[in-house]
Amino acid sequence: MKFIENIVPVKGFTGSGLHAGIKKKKQDLAVVYSEVPAVSAAVFTKNVVKAAPIMLSTLHLRNDSTRAFVVNSGNANACTGEVGANDARTMAKLVADNLGISPEEVLVASTGVIGQTLPMDKIEPGIQNACNTLNNNTWESVSECIMTTDTFPKRATVTFEIDGTPITITGFSKGSGMIHPNMGTMLGFLLTDANIDKSALQTALSTSVIDTYNMVSVDGDTSTNDMVMVLANGEAKNKKITENSSSYIAFYNALHLLNQHLAKLIAQDGEGATKLVQVDVHNATSMDDARLIAKAIITSSLVKTALFGNDANWGRILCAMGYSSGSFDPLTVDIVFASETDSIDIVKQGVALDYSEEHATDILKQQKVWININLHDGEHHATAWGCDLSYDYVKINGSYRS
Amino acid sequence: MKFIENIVPVKGFTGSGLHAGIKKKKQDLAVVYSEVPAVSAAVFTKNVVKAAPIMLSTLHLRNDSTRAFVVNSGNANACTGEVGANDARTMAKLVADNLGISPEEVLVASTGVIGQTLPMDKIEPGIQNACNTLNNNTWESVSECIMTTDTFPKRATVTFEIDGTPITITGFSKGSGMIHPNMGTMLGFLLTDANIDKSALQTALSTSVIDTYNMVSVDGDTSTNDMVMVLANGEAKNKKITENSSSYIAFYNALHLLNQHLAKLIAQDGEGATKLVQVDVHNATSMDDARLIAKAIITSSLVKTALFGNDANWGRILCAMGYSSGSFDPLTVDIVFASETDSIDIVKQGVALDYSEEHATDILKQQKVWININLHDGEHHATAWGCDLSYDYVKINGSYRS
Repeated sequence: MKFIENIVPVKGFTGSGLHAGIKKKKQDLAVVYSEVPAVSAAVFTKNVVKAAPIMLSTLHLRNDSTRAFVVNSGNANACTGEVGANDARTMAKLVADNLGISPEEVLVASTGVIGQTLPMDKIEPGIQNACNTLNNNTWESVSECIMTTDTFPKRATVTFEIDGTPITITGFSKGSGMIHPNMGTMLGFLLTDANIDKSALQTALSTSVIDTYNMVSVDGDTSTNDMVMVLANGEAKNKKITENSSSYIAFYNALHLLNQHLAKLIAQDGEGATKLVQVDVHNATSMDDARLIAKAIITSSLVKTALFGNDANWGRILCAMGYSSGSFDPLTVDIVFASETDSIDIVKQGVALDYSEEHATDILKQQKVWININLHDGEHHATAWGCDLSYDYVKINGSYRS
Repeated sequence: MKFIENIVPVKGFTGSGLHAGIKKKKQDLAVVYSEVPAVSAAVFTKNVVKAAPIMLSTLHLRNDSTRAFVVNSGNANACTGEVGANDARTMAKLVADNLGISPEEVLVASTGVIGQTLPMDKIEPGIQNACNTLNNNTWESVSECIMTTDTFPKRATVTFEIDGTPITITGFSKGSGMIHPNMGTMLGFLLTDANIDKSALQTALSTSVIDTYNMVSVDGDTSTNDMVMVLANGEAKNKKITENSSSYIAFYNALHLLNQHLAKLIAQDGEGATKLVQVDVHNATSMDDARLIAKAIITSSLVKTALFGNDANWGRILCAMGYSSGSFDPLTVDIVFASETDSIDIVKQGVALDYSEEHATDILKQQKVWININLHDGEHHATAWGCDLSYDYVKINGSYRS
């Protein structure tokens, strides 16, 4: 298995990204096309308030063939009522008409401000232009079209072999606020030339998001527009992967590595973040307990502000664990802070050690910080990713629409 | 029923507040004494990590008689292991020995930094001094001893009559971070001369906190030290209130009004807050739905930063409602923003109205802001209180221990 920290062309897929005029200057619309019918799988936000594109894509996902998706940034097409529902349908139809496919073969995604209707006068020519300029070497541009407050594009690729047949899975995702996925997740798009059964693809994706995107939190707010989708067009010509085939594990491991990387990038680029924080909870009595505890720590505003201040205020970590609803014994908890090159024991058996605050602060000042929790309670482990809570988070979100 | 926005003397209670030296300069220790045996009731944090005083007070609450409580600020005596448990017991014993009562008649509360052991060399003479200077006219000083990052003391009184007998309930509380009570709540102390059955007192308190302290959120973090306690010494000499007596309702209403006021003050004084925000959810299908939805809105970091920026970003409100797990139909939601003197309709039937952003911003700039939600779905109503999320919240919590 080979990991590449960029997006690469995948056999049979073309794309185009451009500035349609939804945003003032930046690229804001992309179309991706599969030359042959692909199978698709997706996970969507569990928020009761679902954006129009989420509802439409949920419907179109039932189709056996997916040929294209269109995504815009700058406007989420959420809370836009009947007008919004029509606009999402129109987006699918415009792509279908331009590419000579059926609207049911098109998935739609949107991200940006909630509650404003789409500028369809700009989107219509935008889609037409994108469909006319599809090619196989503008993937960096495509992946930049989905950015909102992101400060860098998030993309990666994994290549591996099944029975000697090389397979590629490439993907891109975006954050960076309203990030606290709940079974669905933030926007993520994955393309692969693997030949895989539709239900196996859905199982692989649904399983993988639990410990990747769903273990990221920037601000505890689950968006109306979260989705991750994957298109598999079979152009690698491997023997078809099914849930019971031995090749499923190889495919799942590659997909999972990619999702984990894209999820971490979203945490690292959280709004206003100055550092990436990884929380590992070891030796929990169950996976659920490990996940709940890790997620509560990474979500706590008080833990996040302390991390911003490089303050080893470990009491807030134990406090967050305490209200996580995960099961553990406070009297057997160990806490270690670590950077890439250093570590310090902070708490042993639930009580503070006589550690050096200066040493702890030095570690917390690094751009990547680990909080390692050992519960001494079982054998399950979970990881969550997040970031600190800074002045800039408040600044960005106090004036997002202005 | 008469409401007084201050703390007043209550028949049979004396108190003393002073600077014991736990904090650098401010008052940090108080003892309150009942001249006759009082019945007590309390609610405690549901955090699994409970501070030592919480564990001790839970035990002492079982006693039929309560004669005193001691509270310190500056140190929470949480996550302090066996040493902390001993220190809490020692605090109760010191009060008991000085006042000639039993340690089981003493409740203990602490608030402040987590994870450091108490400076008992300062607390021991502090308790002795407080016990020697008990009197009935230093209540303002007593109520100031519990402040941490609070910017003003929170206190209020309700007086009413039962069968012609005047009754007083006075109380004081503190915030102002790590505020997201869960069945227990932040520190609150209530004193009354009412003659009331112990179990009726507990029922009244437990019922009242659900819609008062438990509907406040500053930052979503449930503390290790939350508690509200009430002491009733019977010195008003009214006929004893029981759960089935008609006087129970009068007592409950007075207690509830007081709790509501003290809860609102905590929200108003949330760390870094520039405004008090009240969320009213009307016409929900159940009380639980109304509470869940109101609480999700007041807890959302994105709603709170938008309020700080005076930005009518109502999409974030609908989004928070959507992940609240409260049941509602997004297509029948109305949203109104209001100040004390003005209001503006923002959303009707789930879709934005053509409102003036300038007008909305003018309303959001006020120090008290209402978010009124009508679900058109049932007949239940809940209110939650909170505040905005400002640069100062980050500042205060990025350097709390320094």
